[in-house]
Amino acid sequence: MNLRGVGVSPGIGHGPAYILTTRVPEPPEGATYTGESDQEKERAVSALAQVAGELESRGDRAGGEAGEILKAQALMAEDPGLIVKIRSCVEQGMAAERAVYESFGKYREVLAGLGGYLGERAADLDDIRDRVIAVLTGQVMPGLPTPGPEPYVLVAHDLAPADTALLSRETVAAFVTEQGGPTSHTAIIARALGVPAVVACAAATTLTAGVRVLVDGTSGEVRAQPTASDVAQAQNVASARQEAIAQVRGPGRTQDGVAVPLLANVGGPGDVEAALAAGAEGIGLYRTEFLYLGRRQPPRPEEQEEAYRAALDAFPGGPVVVRTLDAGADKPLAFLPPPAPEPNPALGERGVRLFRRHPEVMETQLDALATAAAGSSGRLHVMAAMVATAEEARWFAAACRSADLPSAGVMIEVPAAALRAPGLLAEVDFVSIGTNDLAQYCFAADRELGALSELQDRWQPALLDLVAMTVSAARAAGKPCGVCGEAAADPAMACVLVGLGATTLSMSPAVLPATRAALAGHTMEQCRFAAQAAREAPTAAQARAAARAHLPGLAPLGL
Amino acid sequence: MNLRGVGVSPGIGHGPAYILTTRVPEPPEGATYTGESDQEKERAVSALAQVAGELESRGDRAGGEAGEILKAQALMAEDPGLIVKIRSCVEQGMAAERAVYESFGKYREVLAGLGGYLGERAADLDDIRDRVIAVLTGQVMPGLPTPGPEPYVLVAHDLAPADTALLSRETVAAFVTEQGGPTSHTAIIARALGVPAVVACAAATTLTAGVRVLVDGTSGEVRAQPTASDVAQAQNVASARQEAIAQVRGPGRTQDGVAVPLLANVGGPGDVEAALAAGAEGIGLYRTEFLYLGRRQPPRPEEQEEAYRAALDAFPGGPVVVRTLDAGADKPLAFLPPPAPEPNPALGERGVRLFRRHPEVMETQLDALATAAAGSSGRLHVMAAMVATAEEARWFAAACRSADLPSAGVMIEVPAAALRAPGLLAEVDFVSIGTNDLAQYCFAADRELGALSELQDRWQPALLDLVAMTVSAARAAGKPCGVCGEAAADPAMACVLVGLGATTLSMSPAVLPATRAALAGHTMEQCRFAAQAAREAPTAAQARAAARAHLPGLAPLGL
Repeated sequence: MNLRGVGVSPGIGHGPAYILTTRVPEPPEGATYTGESDQEKERAVSALAQVAGELESRGDRAGGEAGEILKAQALMAEDPGLIVKIRSCVEQGMAAERAVYESFGKYREVLAGLGGYLGERAADLDDIRDRVIAVLTGQVMPGLPTPGPEPYVLVAHDLAPADTALLSRETVAAFVTEQGGPTSHTAIIARALGVPAVVACAAATTLTAGVRVLVDGTSGEVRAQPTASDVAQAQNVASARQEAIAQVRGPGRTQDGVAVPLLANVGGPGDVEAALAAGAEGIGLYRTEFLYLGRRQPPRPEEQEEAYRAALDAFPGGPVVVRTLDAGADKPLAFLPPPAPEPNPALGERGVRLFRRHPEVMETQLDALATAAAGSSGRLHVMAAMVATAEEARWFAAACRSADLPSAGVMIEVPAAALRAPGLLAEVDFVSIGTNDLAQYCFAADRELGALSELQDRWQPALLDLVAMTVSAARAAGKPCGVCGEAAADPAMACVLVGLGATTLSMSPAVLPATRAALAGHTMEQCRFAAQAAREAPTAAQARAAARAHLPGLAPLGL
Repeated sequence: MNLRGVGVSPGIGHGPAYILTTRVPEPPEGATYTGESDQEKERAVSALAQVAGELESRGDRAGGEAGEILKAQALMAEDPGLIVKIRSCVEQGMAAERAVYESFGKYREVLAGLGGYLGERAADLDDIRDRVIAVLTGQVMPGLPTPGPEPYVLVAHDLAPADTALLSRETVAAFVTEQGGPTSHTAIIARALGVPAVVACAAATTLTAGVRVLVDGTSGEVRAQPTASDVAQAQNVASARQEAIAQVRGPGRTQDGVAVPLLANVGGPGDVEAALAAGAEGIGLYRTEFLYLGRRQPPRPEEQEEAYRAALDAFPGGPVVVRTLDAGADKPLAFLPPPAPEPNPALGERGVRLFRRHPEVMETQLDALATAAAGSSGRLHVMAAMVATAEEARWFAAACRSADLPSAGVMIEVPAAALRAPGLLAEVDFVSIGTNDLAQYCFAADRELGALSELQDRWQPALLDLVAMTVSAARAAGKPCGVCGEAAADPAMACVLVGLGATTLSMSPAVLPATRAALAGHTMEQCRFAAQAAREAPTAAQARAAARAHLPGLAPLGL
């Protein structure tokens, strides 16, 4: 069986398929018990408690957003309404596992009937139910396998951060998911781990468990039961590519020597090492949510300063672009009053909008950044998320100036900001284009939905229009314009971005060497022609083909 | 006390404040009962059943989306987990009302702790709980008051469609809500009812119940305890305005005679009469969701044909622009497999995207439309929702041609579609700009969030950019470009849209006469200057002021 999805993290992965499924068999309908009803009730309740405890501790280990999700699940496992219902089913003579099955089923029905987010919670309930039944019937807990002698190919409908939080490339050869677009969390995590990944791969979970699978994270091809020579050939191509890429070293520049600093996207202190190992010249996007999420108290200034200083010190003289907190209704801050529920958190009160409601949170962060910068040789730039208008940019820049920060900028990730980039640039020192969210809003297509992955294609002409508008405005204003979305993870697109006028590129460290090689293989003029050709194309596929036709240096690199 | 929000439905409303709150007092903590526990349990269960029944029948009366919401609430009122819990509390000696209070509380905690949509469901639970307690304690059911001798000013945190579905202007003098932006459902419903409304009015629910309130749906001012002369003056201004507007009759045209057909937005057969009464020259946006939502079976072709024919026959020779079904994960179709849950339904698989997954639904609708058009003298135009690319436009236009439909178009409501309007226009016969959603995506700001109403301002420069791009592309292609968002509900904006080149305007019938008068008071040249001035302004407020400076005919009309 050959499947095809969207390759989102390059490389060849090969190994036995592990189909991530959380189903355990339904306990038989008439299942009953022999002992005392109180004992049986106790058995059910302690299985619930065990599962809740496991979810809780898995949450502690994972930390951050993934940890929060797992802790919410732990709470559901001990819902008092559920326990009452299970006890009552046991009272009626049902075996504990059947009582659990029935009670979760009733609860699920109500949630699922309400649709939307509740439907999603319903799926969570199934997962918890199956874990409890597995405990009661002595089955192996569903979930990720214990690492075997050989890395496996993880196949799933979708991967939540909770699923992937504890993975490493030593145990996983590749990811294949049915959901998820090129900028989904699965894609970003896969690139961060350096694991090949294919998303939006319909019917992937129909692969037979254990069958050997060959995954090409570049082309998006997923082949079941490949021959030995298929595997060898794919691996040869991949290692030739890797070798060719590894030949190119040093700072980012075009063939004719135009410098384009290559920076790393960093989600927390743990990613700094990978950035250094990949030869990043600085950090182009330092996300700061890890300091805030899942905390009952705001992070202390000293704790913030330490984290920022570590990042700055890692790149003496190099730029470190810190994005201020981007929290919202979907990742609420436990130390603020709970936000009003939002039907579409991606269109909600987040980023700089949240700061306008709680300026004290911003001020503390800006002060901590200023203190860290004062004692370090790294060059600090600070930018705000979700800025849509020049007024918001002015407000944020003024706050940065009050905090004595040397350089204030904004992310360009909302279409309005790109359309009115000249007005925003008049207020700030630099801008950085976040292509993932920009595409999400430009096409009104959620990054996480596999079915809409075509609209999330970074080659979509309308997205290139917004990028070009922004870059031209920055050039006219004589101010830097980086790109820190995952678009730079595509070597051809990286050349196009440089051709359009992007002054720096920032990406997952794992894909940085390929981008470095692609740039080094082309002159600025080639990049410009590629950009122009892409802009003139009417479709994403044509834009990509037109750009590549002007980039003859990609093929010899296997890119 | 004077408050200020965003005026979204013009006119003066005056009357006693009714603060819509669904709180009934908490039953005392030690409340117990005297009779048999089985009787007390029965009392609780039948109160739940009564409330469920009432919600169900209110849902039936309201129909459509509002009906669906109410029916989901009815389901929650009879959740088996809840009933078990309540019975067990009564068993422990608690009075039925206290048992209800406690059990809902536990359930709520779990939901609220999960945030997002679940938090919203938690608020629903409070409403149901209070209704049940009201039944048990013989209190008046919380909710809308029974109409008194005088219309009241309805003040609320937010108004769900369920709250407003059964209202009329005979009972309600005005709406004031804390939440909601200019394109929120509250605003749209208020305009459809012809009731003055102010949204995004912080602290509105702190108004004292029963106090007289004066609401100016144009300026957004909300004045508590106005003097008699305040009221008289406001009413005089409003009636002078109404009189001046009523002087202008006939089809839409500028002072110098350029025809701009004024069309109506219609949500179902019931709105056609209001459209005719307002002198609409046709329908610019006929929403078809009412035929589909809340149905276990798809609507039969004959039923669809009848509805479409009635609309076409109401406007002989006039244009009737039907928007094909725009369903999605937030308003799922009961007769299709349930969609995967979406974290952001507004960015989901909806409109034309859903058709690509279920083309049979589209084909049936297009066939029914073609049959209806064949037997009528109305001029049918059909357009798809949520089109983002030229490829989607081509696909939909081809389907329309296969169905022998005379005119196929697309809504321009996704930024990408506006950015690449020339490519889309090459595929279709016309376009229609949906300014509400276009603003929502352009600014990544949910229409329903009061806190983001500034970003939803129809005068935002970036929104005008997208409108201008679209209109210019249509003009270059020699094809019609209407505007069917609520932007045309602002008379000054209506002139700007015409100045930019919009060929028709479509709006709620209630605001159509004011738009007619505004257009008749200005030449095309004035409209063009106003548009140009607005385009050059850096902020929404400046754009509005600049445009109005070129529109001297508004002030004499009181607009």
